[in-house]
Amino acid sequence: GAPPGGPGFGGQQQDPLYGYFSAVAGQDGQISPDELQQCLTQSNFSGSYKPFNLETCRLMINMLDRDMSCTMGFNEFKELVTVLNGWKQHFMTMDRDRSGTVDPQEMQQAVNSMGYRLSPQAMNCIVKRFSSQGKITFDDYVACCVKLRTLTDLFKKRDQAGQGVAAFPYDEFIQCIMSA
Amino acid sequence: GAPPGGPGFGGQQQDPLYGYFSAVAGQDGQISPDELQQCLTQSNFSGSYKPFNLETCRLMINMLDRDMSCTMGFNEFKELVTVLNGWKQHFMTMDRDRSGTVDPQEMQQAVNSMGYRLSPQAMNCIVKRFSSQGKITFDDYVACCVKLRTLTDLFKKRDQAGQGVAAFPYDEFIQCIMSA
Repeated sequence: GAPPGGPGFGGQQQDPLYGYFSAVAGQDGQISPDELQQCLTQSNFSGSYKPFNLETCRLMINMLDRDMSCTMGFNEFKELVTVLNGWKQHFMTMDRDRSGTVDPQEMQQAVNSMGYRLSPQAMNCIVKRFSSQGKITFDDYVACCVKLRTLTDLFKKRDQAGQGVAAFPYDEFIQCIMSA
Repeated sequence: GAPPGGPGFGGQQQDPLYGYFSAVAGQDGQISPDELQQCLTQSNFSGSYKPFNLETCRLMINMLDRDMSCTMGFNEFKELVTVLNGWKQHFMTMDRDRSGTVDPQEMQQAVNSMGYRLSPQAMNCIVKRFSSQGKITFDDYVACCVKLRTLTDLFKKRDQAGQGVAAFPYDEFIQCIMSA
């Protein structure tokens, strides 16, 4: 029979990721933050690192949520997994002693190497926000990468001339930040 | 002997709140998000509602953090408790059946009554962000109030002419949103 989500998903039945996705997606072929959490936990995405918390999963969905539905279809899920794999690879390279955490300085180098050009003050805000007891876990690191990407995308949409300054009407400011 | 935090705190020793504060603040007279969480839990601020989670406490500190230290002194703590008491009163008025949660519609009315003028779309983002299974707990409600106030303050600082539009350079956008 056809997999949940309709005939459009037919060709993807062979994709090993599709098994994990369809097990939680149900009839509508969309997953919510708690279903994404289940999915990434069951597929053991984090490996020896702790599974993602619900807030990180909410941020992940919003990062790719072009239709503002707060849910995620299979194509976006595949895109997410590709991005997550890149970040995981990078994190494991930094976490040489497999302690499960990296230092603020390593996090800053990682952010730089992703191409973000930020002042020491902004870096400081980021590190304070995503570290606890001076260390950054894999979950925190991914939450940081997701949030930075989401906010930068939002900014660029409002700075199409590339001037480095974006203007927000109040209502849109609240809308986009509340969902970022 | 002088209380922790130096002689400036002398007159506040009689304040019942000061006992809770000083028990966690230590030598520097400042509290971090986890210390604020301890403090509000030990003083049983939430009463029959669940204690605040760490993220809500982080948001509370940032709301009043004028020196960007990510910590809170006793004067700010007193100010916070006053604001929190108002929100708690309001929440208890809405939560007539003492179920511990309110409906999205009640939350929207509360946000309106605080003077925020937001579109249905922005209200929708807020409700989606702060509800789970269609209900809003006291913790979520406070997190929402804190975040709305912090973002609105940030916006107003960049819209001093009151035009309803604020312009952010990229680096400051990242800085202020990451700490909001």
